Amino acid sequence: MNNKDNTIVLASASPRRKMILERLGIPFIVMPADIDETLPDLSPEDAVKELAVKKAESICSAGQLKHRWYLAADTMVLIDGKMLGKPADIIEAEAFLGALSGRKHQVITGIALFDAEKREMRTGTDSAHVWFAALTDKDITWYLSTGEWNGAAGAYRIQEMGECLVEKIEGSCSNIMGLPIRLFFSILLSAGYPAYNLPSG
Amino acid sequence: MNNKDNTIVLASASPRRKMILERLGIPFIVMPADIDETLPDLSPEDAVKELAVKKAESICSAGQLKHRWYLAADTMVLIDGKMLGKPADIIEAEAFLGALSGRKHQVITGIALFDAEKREMRTGTDSAHVWFAALTDKDITWYLSTGEWNGAAGAYRIQEMGECLVEKIEGSCSNIMGLPIRLFFSILLSAGYPAYNLPSG
Repeated sequence: MNNKDNTIVLASASPRRKMILERLGIPFIVMPADIDETLPDLSPEDAVKELAVKKAESICSAGQLKHRWYLAADTMVLIDGKMLGKPADIIEAEAFLGALSGRKHQVITGIALFDAEKREMRTGTDSAHVWFAALTDKDITWYLSTGEWNGAAGAYRIQEMGECLVEKIEGSCSNIMGLPIRLFFSILLSAGYPAYNLPSG
Repeated sequence: MNNKDNTIVLASASPRRKMILERLGIPFIVMPADIDETLPDLSPEDAVKELAVKKAESICSAGQLKHRWYLAADTMVLIDGKMLGKPADIIEAEAFLGALSGRKHQVITGIALFDAEKREMRTGTDSAHVWFAALTDKDITWYLSTGEWNGAAGAYRIQEMGECLVEKIEGSCSNIMGLPIRLFFSILLSAGYPAYNLPSG
């Protein structure tokens, strides 16, 4: 392990998370974690944290600690205390959008950052609320036709055309995208990562 | 003028506004407006709307109505009722970040969409609140070193590294970026623009 190596190993194939690391000018490589994503029987905040920790541990082992920094995150969409995962098909996507229409829901992201040099795992969670507009049938038909529902928790992508459906949010935009930037930045600083040298030259 | 032409003429050189049109799959060309940006003696909401209308009118004339759709926007950052424009230099940028640190401010965007076929101007405004974290001297020194303050109203860019400084927002992320997507989408629909056909194939 090279202790001067600031590369972050990211346990996620999510293009949104990659985009956020690029935006921060952080050097990184992607190593998607292969874990059992069954939700632990915990509060939503503890569950996303636990899954993030599992993912980070999984890529540490897989990566044989060739690098120092390992990052994982898990994001959950909740309405009426019920979790909306990724829709199985367009029928379920339509049902999800109908359930979100005209109402407020919650998005929670847990982060885990492992420092393989100090053998320290740091975690945190961030929560946001999202108010969907009252959607017409045309809105829903249109949005389904964009295909963005596919692979998206809650069947929408706020950072793409999905924001057309959103009245407002309260929280952090990047949390809803899957990696809350302010929380991540403060975890990096507390872990001793040279975040004040970003973007890495 | 070709009435089947869905190209939007955008009165802004802002990369953020261009990015939002790209994200929506809208065909567009850029024609920056050259107007006197002195703020009219109006409420902030009316002032941004008025400036957006002026910009849209200016590019209509300049474009000699070769296209049907003309879009302009104006964004204002306000704290304690005082407007923060683009900082003149790094000293002023530092003062702006100091003024925003640990506090809530407001971001207001006005939009104007002109339909040259029907000779109709549609307008709207959107407002968001942004809570800055209490910044340390290191935070400010670091953020100034990224250069993002340059050319940014309020001296930060939330869609880039600036979100590291932001605790949370209440409103629309795209408003703070300079073009509130939901408002824009609803103006497009009310104007008869084929927004339900987006992304344009």
